[in-house]
Amino acid sequence: MGLGLHYEKGISLAGLEKARKAEKVYVEFYTNPMPYLSMENLQKFLGKPIIILKRKDLEEKAKEGILKDALKMDVALLVPGDPMVATTHVSLRIQAYKMGIKTEIVNGVSIYSAAPSIVGLQIYKFGKTVTIPFPTLTYKPQTPYDVIKENFVRGLHTLVLLDVDYEKGKCMNIKDGLEYLLEIEKERKEKIVTFDRLVVGVAGVGSPNPIIKGNIVKKLLNYQFKMYPQTLIFPGKLHFMEVEALKIFAQTPEEALKPYEE
Amino acid sequence: MGLGLHYEKGISLAGLEKARKAEKVYVEFYTNPMPYLSMENLQKFLGKPIIILKRKDLEEKAKEGILKDALKMDVALLVPGDPMVATTHVSLRIQAYKMGIKTEIVNGVSIYSAAPSIVGLQIYKFGKTVTIPFPTLTYKPQTPYDVIKENFVRGLHTLVLLDVDYEKGKCMNIKDGLEYLLEIEKERKEKIVTFDRLVVGVAGVGSPNPIIKGNIVKKLLNYQFKMYPQTLIFPGKLHFMEVEALKIFAQTPEEALKPYEE
Repeated sequence: MGLGLHYEKGISLAGLEKARKAEKVYVEFYTNPMPYLSMENLQKFLGKPIIILKRKDLEEKAKEGILKDALKMDVALLVPGDPMVATTHVSLRIQAYKMGIKTEIVNGVSIYSAAPSIVGLQIYKFGKTVTIPFPTLTYKPQTPYDVIKENFVRGLHTLVLLDVDYEKGKCMNIKDGLEYLLEIEKERKEKIVTFDRLVVGVAGVGSPNPIIKGNIVKKLLNYQFKMYPQTLIFPGKLHFMEVEALKIFAQTPEEALKPYEE
Repeated sequence: MGLGLHYEKGISLAGLEKARKAEKVYVEFYTNPMPYLSMENLQKFLGKPIIILKRKDLEEKAKEGILKDALKMDVALLVPGDPMVATTHVSLRIQAYKMGIKTEIVNGVSIYSAAPSIVGLQIYKFGKTVTIPFPTLTYKPQTPYDVIKENFVRGLHTLVLLDVDYEKGKCMNIKDGLEYLLEIEKERKEKIVTFDRLVVGVAGVGSPNPIIKGNIVKKLLNYQFKMYPQTLIFPGKLHFMEVEALKIFAQTPEEALKPYEE
């Protein structure tokens, strides 16, 4: 079941009810850390202890752990955001099915709909989504740049998620994400992610006070987004209502919006 | 704040808490009907009466109604799905801002993330979303066909929402949606929505037992989806995990999946 975003209050009543009834409750935070979630409060809501699982508990040792339990009793797995958005959980559900375990999904609020929504951009105008990974010496794919380009050419917005390094307990920030793209721009020179390109940064989606800031890349590089996780949106063509929303709710200067107005 | 999907238990704890504190609580169902929601239960959860608003209360008379109230007191507006996905609510929030009213958003589970998730398709491989409108004698746009085509050519999945006729209290069903597209196919002949094209139908997203069925168009036309709202997904290229999920959780026959495997 989905925990939704940001904190322990993101869970739905349906999720809460089912987790309360379960005989054993697990949670994982490695697909999506939730630094503002209080395990103490969550356990209080549920009236029972919750066991935190690590990546290997779900990806390698599931059969000796959570799935073995699920053969014998009613088990709940709490997952940040929506429970079936990550491949890991789809895979787990397929394994469960093959072992004869009945599964039920309780959806949660996901960054895929929540980020466009709070920014005031029309969700049906988003193209393919992409994640910027932490680069290594040998791994720095240009896919994020290509996806932004492809959507932009079609006038569509792009949601750009920023990677999480589970081992190091680190979330990529907006500055690093933008610099990743600017470096590819320097090489490709296709004028997709330039210093004067409009971009919207969002931090703390799902919290009562998320940080939303729209401006040209150059300005956003220096803005301190103080919450996590952080996300980028590259707008395509903007409807006048989207222009108004970005002005008001993302303090975007008029001159940054002009080139994108429909 | 978002009510999430399907029924009164879709709301998050954060939404519930804030609605409880509000001095006046409104709800609307015209952007997205929720036939399985019990107003009685919802009012019990909140411990107070909830006023149902109609389209004109939000689109024409907001200034004399909900916004006037919000100038004087703490007002909550409950919205199906996610609260800021529909333009109506973005517009209302902009009006509120201009009147000096502070607004706060509590996100809800949206069909945009929940439908891909329960079907087991990878959300980052979805392209632009589109809605099939109820056709009239003079209005039958080909946009849905074009969007499916555009995504398909790029190997991307398409989420196709089916329209709601608020005045008549009607939701479009999967059969009507498919026939809409088949008629355009007959004219355009581009082999995008043919009888043997793979499609996934989903009904009752957000419920404990949503109906999920994947098959070729010809077969899905005759399948009785008994819940509402109903939604279509046209898959693009399929990862092997997606193929497995569609086989198991959408009872999709192997031969229908073959042409789409990556």
